[in-house]
Amino acid sequence: MDKVRVGVIGIGYWGPHLLRNLVSLPTVQVVAVADRMDQRLQEVKNSYPQITVTKDYHDFFEMGVQAVAIATPPATHFPIAKDCLEHGVHVMVEKPLALNSADAELLVDIAEQRGLTLMVGHTYEYNPAVRKIKEIIDSGELGKIHYINSTRVNLGLFQNSLNVMWDLAPHDISILLYLLGEEPVTVTAEGNASVFEGLHDIAHIHMKFPNNTLAHIHVSWLSPIKTRQMVIVGSEKMLVYDDVALTDKIRIFDKGVEPLPGNELYDVRCNYRYGDTTTPHFDWVEPLRVECEHYIESIVNGTRPHSDGASGLRVVQVLESADRSLYGSEERLQRMLMADPMRLKSDGARARFP
Amino acid sequence: MDKVRVGVIGIGYWGPHLLRNLVSLPTVQVVAVADRMDQRLQEVKNSYPQITVTKDYHDFFEMGVQAVAIATPPATHFPIAKDCLEHGVHVMVEKPLALNSADAELLVDIAEQRGLTLMVGHTYEYNPAVRKIKEIIDSGELGKIHYINSTRVNLGLFQNSLNVMWDLAPHDISILLYLLGEEPVTVTAEGNASVFEGLHDIAHIHMKFPNNTLAHIHVSWLSPIKTRQMVIVGSEKMLVYDDVALTDKIRIFDKGVEPLPGNELYDVRCNYRYGDTTTPHFDWVEPLRVECEHYIESIVNGTRPHSDGASGLRVVQVLESADRSLYGSEERLQRMLMADPMRLKSDGARARFP
Amino acid sequence: MDKVRVGVIGIGYWGPHLLRNLVSLPTVQVVAVADRMDQRLQEVKNSYPQITVTKDYHDFFEMGVQAVAIATPPATHFPIAKDCLEHGVHVMVEKPLALNSADAELLVDIAEQRGLTLMVGHTYEYNPAVRKIKEIIDSGELGKIHYINSTRVNLGLFQNSLNVMWDLAPHDISILLYLLGEEPVTVTAEGNASVFEGLHDIAHIHMKFPNNTLAHIHVSWLSPIKTRQMVIVGSEKMLVYDDVALTDKIRIFDKGVEPLPGNELYDVRCNYRYGDTTTPHFDWVEPLRVECEHYIESIVNGTRPHSDGASGLRVVQVLESADRSLYGSEERLQRMLMADPMRLKSDGARARFP
Amino acid sequence: MDKVRVGVIGIGYWGPHLLRNLVSLPTVQVVAVADRMDQRLQEVKNSYPQITVTKDYHDFFEMGVQAVAIATPPATHFPIAKDCLEHGVHVMVEKPLALNSADAELLVDIAEQRGLTLMVGHTYEYNPAVRKIKEIIDSGELGKIHYINSTRVNLGLFQNSLNVMWDLAPHDISILLYLLGEEPVTVTAEGNASVFEGLHDIAHIHMKFPNNTLAHIHVSWLSPIKTRQMVIVGSEKMLVYDDVALTDKIRIFDKGVEPLPGNELYDVRCNYRYGDTTTPHFDWVEPLRVECEHYIESIVNGTRPHSDGASGLRVVQVLESADRSLYGSEERLQRMLMADPMRLKSDGARARFP
Repeated sequence: MDKVRVGVIGIGYWGPHLLRNLVSLPTVQVVAVADRMDQRLQEVKNSYPQITVTKDYHDFFEMGVQAVAIATPPATHFPIAKDCLEHGVHVMVEKPLALNSADAELLVDIAEQRGLTLMVGHTYEYNPAVRKIKEIIDSGELGKIHYINSTRVNLGLFQNSLNVMWDLAPHDISILLYLLGEEPVTVTAEGNASVFEGLHDIAHIHMKFPNNTLAHIHVSWLSPIKTRQMVIVGSEKMLVYDDVALTDKIRIFDKGVEPLPGNELYDVRCNYRYGDTTTPHFDWVEPLRVECEHYIESIVNGTRPHSDGASGLRVVQVLESADRSLYGSEERLQRMLMADPMRLKSDGARARFP
Repeated sequence: MDKVRVGVIGIGYWGPHLLRNLVSLPTVQVVAVADRMDQRLQEVKNSYPQITVTKDYHDFFEMGVQAVAIATPPATHFPIAKDCLEHGVHVMVEKPLALNSADAELLVDIAEQRGLTLMVGHTYEYNPAVRKIKEIIDSGELGKIHYINSTRVNLGLFQNSLNVMWDLAPHDISILLYLLGEEPVTVTAEGNASVFEGLHDIAHIHMKFPNNTLAHIHVSWLSPIKTRQMVIVGSEKMLVYDDVALTDKIRIFDKGVEPLPGNELYDVRCNYRYGDTTTPHFDWVEPLRVECEHYIESIVNGTRPHSDGASGLRVVQVLESADRSLYGSEERLQRMLMADPMRLKSDGARARFP
Repeated sequence: MDKVRVGVIGIGYWGPHLLRNLVSLPTVQVVAVADRMDQRLQEVKNSYPQITVTKDYHDFFEMGVQAVAIATPPATHFPIAKDCLEHGVHVMVEKPLALNSADAELLVDIAEQRGLTLMVGHTYEYNPAVRKIKEIIDSGELGKIHYINSTRVNLGLFQNSLNVMWDLAPHDISILLYLLGEEPVTVTAEGNASVFEGLHDIAHIHMKFPNNTLAHIHVSWLSPIKTRQMVIVGSEKMLVYDDVALTDKIRIFDKGVEPLPGNELYDVRCNYRYGDTTTPHFDWVEPLRVECEHYIESIVNGTRPHSDGASGLRVVQVLESADRSLYGSEERLQRMLMADPMRLKSDGARARFP
Repeated sequence: MDKVRVGVIGIGYWGPHLLRNLVSLPTVQVVAVADRMDQRLQEVKNSYPQITVTKDYHDFFEMGVQAVAIATPPATHFPIAKDCLEHGVHVMVEKPLALNSADAELLVDIAEQRGLTLMVGHTYEYNPAVRKIKEIIDSGELGKIHYINSTRVNLGLFQNSLNVMWDLAPHDISILLYLLGEEPVTVTAEGNASVFEGLHDIAHIHMKFPNNTLAHIHVSWLSPIKTRQMVIVGSEKMLVYDDVALTDKIRIFDKGVEPLPGNELYDVRCNYRYGDTTTPHFDWVEPLRVECEHYIESIVNGTRPHSDGASGLRVVQVLESADRSLYGSEERLQRMLMADPMRLKSDGARARFP
């Protein structure tokens, strides 16, 4: 089988990881890398002299590139992905798929019409820990899911045209939708713009799912301790997923609570059920490697990837709803304007980005 | 100086701790203990044969008891405290002071009129760690306070006429009001009644304070891991207070974020300031001992205690606001009815409680 | 049944805990407390006015005290225990039973002759966690025990006539003997006298047991972090006991290593077996309460307690062996002299201690 | 400046990390990689098509390779390093430098005579945390160093011709020699061969340094929890270095103990000094990158590297002393025979290794 000819666009923070994984796949030939910064291109050249580097990703189209991996700033995801799809190139793009659902839908449509793979980099859906948790939930071991609490905070990378929800919460939302297999009924949000006026750096998102399940997401760029934790409370057992932990990433608590019959007024207590706590073993693989392999397989086999465009669209829709709750109407407008320049002028994106 | 003659009402979970501390104070004579359960009274008798035990706290009034410590279920705080004050007895009552602000105000008024001490058991205001944090904030070391995030969760004691906010959040609210020295502008809440219909066991409270400070409180009776953590984000430094930690209860992170001038569109980053992390040393004393000593001093010196009735009232007001946000109008009513029996019949409380 | 009349000797650090537990037992009447410090006696008087306090424990003998609990400094254990036994009083004494095996044997003999209970306060043998571990080992779940590593360090209480092994290691040794059910074949030790010349404040004890089992104990008064951890490596599973942990005191790791057949010279690896990790649930009771109850039961029923005099003697014998390894002959002499005054003049102990 | 032409020998576990770092250095051209396994060579070829791969490192000598990095099994370090030096090639070799001090000395001599760089991969000497600790100790902040306790345990990679000390302790020993700047006066060891007869998988090494400083190293291949911790106790402060921690790798405890004047016999206590605990900030760089850069600089500038051959020799000497203590005379012999084949036939190494 011929190798798939791949190009990588954007090699700032995440791009090098994509590059390293793609380069190591026997089914892939990384043909070219595009970035607007000379130094980054030079570093690529050092380690991988066989790869062509360029400041303009449009060069890809004359090099027989069949598929791209896009890891540029979020505001450029839509115009670049659209451009590539329209040139008949398969696209894997980092989250969020776009900055509004209209753009996201457009990408889904174009990919559909052209028969191209459109995949969003919801890495956690390819994470062995998250897949193990999905398996546990689906087995019924936890019982009915009452509540999921997800925390993703750090002293983090501020983004100037995006609030913290758009930056961090796509991970949590994509995990929640994946684990619960359903969409929220209502989405509300609270937050604070602490450092820059108008730019929320701390947020809490509440998602009510059918059947009385509540999910809460806390994201922040202003926390002294890096935390990536998900607590899942079921009617039978409880589970904690600590993505930062070196070991014990998943712990299952055989704990529960039941009301005692005939509660008395002055001594109301429930029955606590306490059992063993278990750390299930699972084999680890780098999620990004799984994701990259899955992308290539989807292209080669013409199959739909798990985190396809529709999945990326659902995440964007939740974020839009959260935005509507977070901002008052006038503030909302301000934010729009701030983020606008890029989105409104998406056709002209090429002028400003490779 | 004569010892203050004290009686303890309710020795279920918290009462024995009160009793142990009061008994050890050289300025106190614990005269009597009341509880409706024989076995508890027997246990008191075993360890402290010198103390009179009774099932009816009204016996106290003929025993020259000058002051009581009340650790009965929340719904009985108001009627018993009122009763005691009306008998000319000083009152220290566990939180919350009452189940609505009207009742709380009434208690404040009676105590005022009669010149009696009314104190609420906001234990954390007497906790050396919290006092150290107050000192640090007041010194300006953290800069402007952007955000406080307080988590108090566990697999916890369900209460049948009170949601989880009334049970756990009085601690967080009293600490927040104490640390910030101001009252919130808005209070909203989200939550879930997972196990019992109508009884919220999980809640998130958002409090906006003047000057763009946000506080968030997460309380839950349904968490596998006991957590009592407060993260305080200032413009200069950040602080984490972990009440469950054996050491390092307070950690100060010399971390911050500043925007770099001339942010570029495709590579927007802020400057992260990373410095040392410090665990300040402070001397430990059991908070409840400090609280008990403070109660007795307030009585003896006729001074107003820190956590006085007014302080208890403010906490109840915040909880009422949170309730209004948490419940829709009809649900609210339901809850009222559920909690009602006790409050409506507060005059008749004696018939059902010692 | 009449209550057993008990006296407590020494209420410095550990004594108050003994007192609190004994006082709460329905089968016990604590008649009197002896200590040489007025302030401590006053504190007892405050909380327990019904108890007689005295500076001289000999007063006990005229008060019908049937049993004592001794929590005085180690050098006084032998003379006081001997004195009490000779007055026909049952004895529970804190560890170590004595400072040399000759003294310990003498106590065992006297108790035997007089038909009195002699019990040593090896609290951990009454600790639900240790008992759970014993149960796990005996079930064969861990396989053959290869190795036990016990760490008990802190910034700790220096004792002037005893090195750190005598202070801390009795706990570890008594646990090891209890868990393995056999005695060591060889005992060696290494250590350092860092702060005071001649007084070892850091030590490592190596105990070789039959059947190729090694145990290592690390004790120190000079460690910044309090650690009380025991790692037990079996041929089938491994177990970690963390006595400082609030939860997860015991964790069982289903991990092992097996050699692969046909190891190659340049790539020798074993097969690692990785399975789940489990925290078994067990009910908690304060070990000291179990110990106190067991003491009283042994007296009442005339049965031999688990941690009897013979058990205390075995621990002293291991410590003596460790001492012989730790010291050279001349240093050993010095230490002897330093510790001597108390032991040589044990008959005259009364003159210097209540 | 021309790039240094480098070859890498052995790309099993550690080699790929060396390769990745060397490849990224602008001063280096990685010309070739040798390993005896086809699959590994294929993986190198995938990611780095520009690099020549070979099963025989002797090919390097015809390719103008100026310097090698050797990451083969320990028993081959000596023959391969010797071979390369004799071909006039600079050598960086993983620890331990050789399996006995005679071989290590020979390598030092050859490098000296030929004017070649001989460097040992004591990575920790290039670790920013270790360098920060060295700086702290040298500043006198900790006072006199009483004691260092180093733990390096895991469920680890068994090696068939080497006990656990030779595998893991070179790290600890090289750190200790670096931090203390002096050599031990005595070295003793205890251990156990739990899984394979004659192959020690658990060991404790005690090193006494001049001026009453004790160091203890615990290494094990049989521990359920990965630990890499060093506790340094000084007369003024204490320091904990946790290499596994994601944050707080270094913590400084302002704690100490001083004897109180006039200790009394029955209540002997020292004064504990408790102050703040500090986590000093330092910038992180991958140690292996620093090490690789340092290797190239040493070659280019003709300067002696920090972890030079003499340093590697000192570590081997300590291990030899530890071996002598660990084994009895007959056991020692057995071990010798087991490890012998490789060392005795070092001249014939080429026949069996590339």
